[in-house]
Amino acid sequence: MKDASANADAKRAAGERAADLVKDGMAVGLGTGSTVAWTIKRLGERVREEGLEIHGVPTSYQAEELAIASGIVLTTLNQHPILDLAIDGADQVDADLFVIKGGGAAHTREKVVACSAKRFVIVADESKYVEKLRHPVPVEVLPFAARLVEQRAKELGGVPVLRLGKMKDGPVITDNGNFVMDVGFGTISDPAALARRLCGIPGLVEHGIFENLDELYLARKGEVEIISKER
Amino acid sequence: MKDASANADAKRAAGERAADLVKDGMAVGLGTGSTVAWTIKRLGERVREEGLEIHGVPTSYQAEELAIASGIVLTTLNQHPILDLAIDGADQVDADLFVIKGGGAAHTREKVVACSAKRFVIVADESKYVEKLRHPVPVEVLPFAARLVEQRAKELGGVPVLRLGKMKDGPVITDNGNFVMDVGFGTISDPAALARRLCGIPGLVEHGIFENLDELYLARKGEVEIISKER
Repeated sequence: MKDASANADAKRAAGERAADLVKDGMAVGLGTGSTVAWTIKRLGERVREEGLEIHGVPTSYQAEELAIASGIVLTTLNQHPILDLAIDGADQVDADLFVIKGGGAAHTREKVVACSAKRFVIVADESKYVEKLRHPVPVEVLPFAARLVEQRAKELGGVPVLRLGKMKDGPVITDNGNFVMDVGFGTISDPAALARRLCGIPGLVEHGIFENLDELYLARKGEVEIISKER
Repeated sequence: MKDASANADAKRAAGERAADLVKDGMAVGLGTGSTVAWTIKRLGERVREEGLEIHGVPTSYQAEELAIASGIVLTTLNQHPILDLAIDGADQVDADLFVIKGGGAAHTREKVVACSAKRFVIVADESKYVEKLRHPVPVEVLPFAARLVEQRAKELGGVPVLRLGKMKDGPVITDNGNFVMDVGFGTISDPAALARRLCGIPGLVEHGIFENLDELYLARKGEVEIISKER
C-alpha cells in the first residue's frame, strides 16, 4: 500500500509538473488518463488563481468533462488548427520515445490532437516505461473492413483480437463509430517500420503507434524525470 | 451525337465483356458507375438465363440497388472475406494501371472490396485513360481532422478542396460519416510514393489511389481492349 501511495504521489507530481509548461495565451491539447488528469486540475487552479488565459482542445469526452469542471475554456481544432502544446497519457513508452496509445479507444482523436501541436508531451508513471515496446497495438477499423484488416495484420506477423465491450454486448464502438482491434506483435523491434505498414492497410482508420513525442514526464522512484527526444 | 452513341456502345461492350469473367460459385465485388452497371445487368441475365450461381458484394448503395433489381444474391465481406473477383469503374487510369477513384465519395469501401479480391478488374471508357494520372485525389477525412489533413496535404504539394454537397448545404458526408477533400497534385509522377505519404496523414481515412489493379477492360475506338499488369 505504501508503494501504491508513493506511485500515486509520483503520478500527481508528474502531471502537475507538466502543467508548468503552459503559458498565457496558449492553445493546449488536453489528454486522457489518471496522470494527465492532474495536469488538467492544476491548469484549472492556475486559471482561477493566476488568471491564466488558455484554450483547451480535449482528446476525449472524459477530458472534456474534467476540463469543464476545472474551468478551462474549450475550443476546437477548427478554431485553433495549430496547438502550442499537447499533453497526454500513454499505454506504453519506450526508451526511443515511441508510444503506444489506444487503451481508451480514443487514439485516433488523440493522434490528430498530438500531431496538431508544436510540442507533444506525455505524462506517465514508471509502469508504462519499457526498453522496447511490447504492448498490443490498438487499431481503429471500419466495421465492414474487419476481416481484411484481420488478414493483413496477420500477414504482418500480428495476432489481432477484436476488442469486446464490457458494458455493451459485442464489439466496442469508438466515438467515430468504428471497431478496435488489439494486435499483438510481441516485442516491437522497429516501431516506425511497423507504423508505416499498418498505415497501408485499407479500412484501418488509425493505429496506436505515436512517433512524434518530444518529451516524457516520467514519475519514477518518487521523482519526476524529464526525458527528451534527441534530435 | 454519333460519337456519344458510339462511346455508349463501347462502354456497354466493355461492361458486358467483363461479366464473362464470372464463373459459377464465385463471390464477386460489384462496383459503381455507368460502365460497370452493364456488368451487373449482364450478370443478372446470366443468373436468369444460365442459372449462374454467384454471391455479390456491392461497393455502394447504388450498386446494391442495381444488383437487387438484377436478381443477384448479395453477401458481405464478413460472410465471404475473400472474393474471387472485383469489377469496378474508375475516375482515371494510367498506363501503369494506377487508378484514381472516389468521385462518388465511396472509394474507401471500394478499396476494401478491391483489396479483398484475388483479381481486380476495372471497366472504363477511353476518356478515363491517361499516360500519367492528373485527376485530383479524393481523400476521406474525419471531420475533426480536416484542418490537419489540409495542412499535411499542402506540405505534400497538394491543393486540397473540401467537397461541398449539391443537394445538401455544407460538405458532402460519406456513408461512413466523414468529409471528402479533392487534392490536386497536377501530374502525378510517382503514384505509389504519393499513396504512401497520404497513408501517413493522421485523420485521413483512405485516399483514392488504387495500386492493385490486375486488368483494365477499356472501351476504346469502338473496341474492348484488355490491358493487363506486367508482373
